[in-house]
Amino acid sequence: MAKRSFLLSKVYGLLEPGPVVLLTTARKGAANVMTMSWHTMMEFVPPLVGCVISSRDFSFDALKATRQCVLNIPTAEMAVKVVGCGNTSGRRVDKFTAFGLTPEPASLVGAPLIAECYANLECRVVDTRLVNRYNFFVLEVLKAWIDPACKDPRTLHHRGRGVFSVAGETIKLPSKMK
Amino acid sequence: MAKRSFLLSKVYGLLEPGPVVLLTTARKGAANVMTMSWHTMMEFVPPLVGCVISSRDFSFDALKATRQCVLNIPTAEMAVKVVGCGNTSGRRVDKFTAFGLTPEPASLVGAPLIAECYANLECRVVDTRLVNRYNFFVLEVLKAWIDPACKDPRTLHHRGRGVFSVAGETIKLPSKMK
Repeated sequence: MAKRSFLLSKVYGLLEPGPVVLLTTARKGAANVMTMSWHTMMEFVPPLVGCVISSRDFSFDALKATRQCVLNIPTAEMAVKVVGCGNTSGRRVDKFTAFGLTPEPASLVGAPLIAECYANLECRVVDTRLVNRYNFFVLEVLKAWIDPACKDPRTLHHRGRGVFSVAGETIKLPSKMK
Repeated sequence: MAKRSFLLSKVYGLLEPGPVVLLTTARKGAANVMTMSWHTMMEFVPPLVGCVISSRDFSFDALKATRQCVLNIPTAEMAVKVVGCGNTSGRRVDKFTAFGLTPEPASLVGAPLIAECYANLECRVVDTRLVNRYNFFVLEVLKAWIDPACKDPRTLHHRGRGVFSVAGETIKLPSKMK
């Protein structure tokens, strides 16, 4: 898949619909990936993303220490890998190998992109004020990549306990909303 | 539509997929409604929700002053109303009348439920530390209502400028994830 750089001002349109994402980190030479649904856009430009990562997750310490990560957006074809990553811990498993995910170097951060995902957002942590109380990190998206062939991505939307809605029909209404 | 009380411990499954919601407030006898996509779950029990509401929105002042609101979750049949609410301001328009939305009294907060939405979450503001910097409020869901007939809701997921993905196919994979 040949990815293109994607305008930062359009990143909100990727995360605002609430897709499950795969968050990658790298620390001391070891990359990890976790499944995450608790995120929201917080600003258009520069794109800011708030997200909750449990302090029990292996990725929590890596993100806190390195302050860098990548948000990778999978589509429905990757559902088994997404659930697999959510059901294992990087403490015990190399999830890239276990689930057939291909790490690729990012341009601005130490964490890897996941090649199989249709979009990848390189991020740094910019605010940790709510980390102690809510495990809530504010990220700034520094660089975005997208597969230009993927026009209406069949993103995954978790409804709990392995049940997902897959993004279906696309509708367009006249709107002044950004 | 006869709604039932819904377990607070299951509320995350309604908001985690990232649906557009209609946020209602009430201040000085006047109710208002706005369209919102920038929200995330932050805790399972009690259910906490983080959300960004622009300080330019009429609802911002009402929420800040009353510290109460309702998150109402619409389905695709309501798309025209959802976009209408996003393109008008409560400063000038009574959106309930303009878009044919039916306000119903909530049980624990002053803001109304929207009868046409398949789920309604009565909330109070519990943290305002990130309001000045990001317009980010932390809400606690106090009471939840759902239409028990709506099993696979065709929720709306905004991708920007009036383009929405409608929740389509439901898939279920074996998972230990909550």
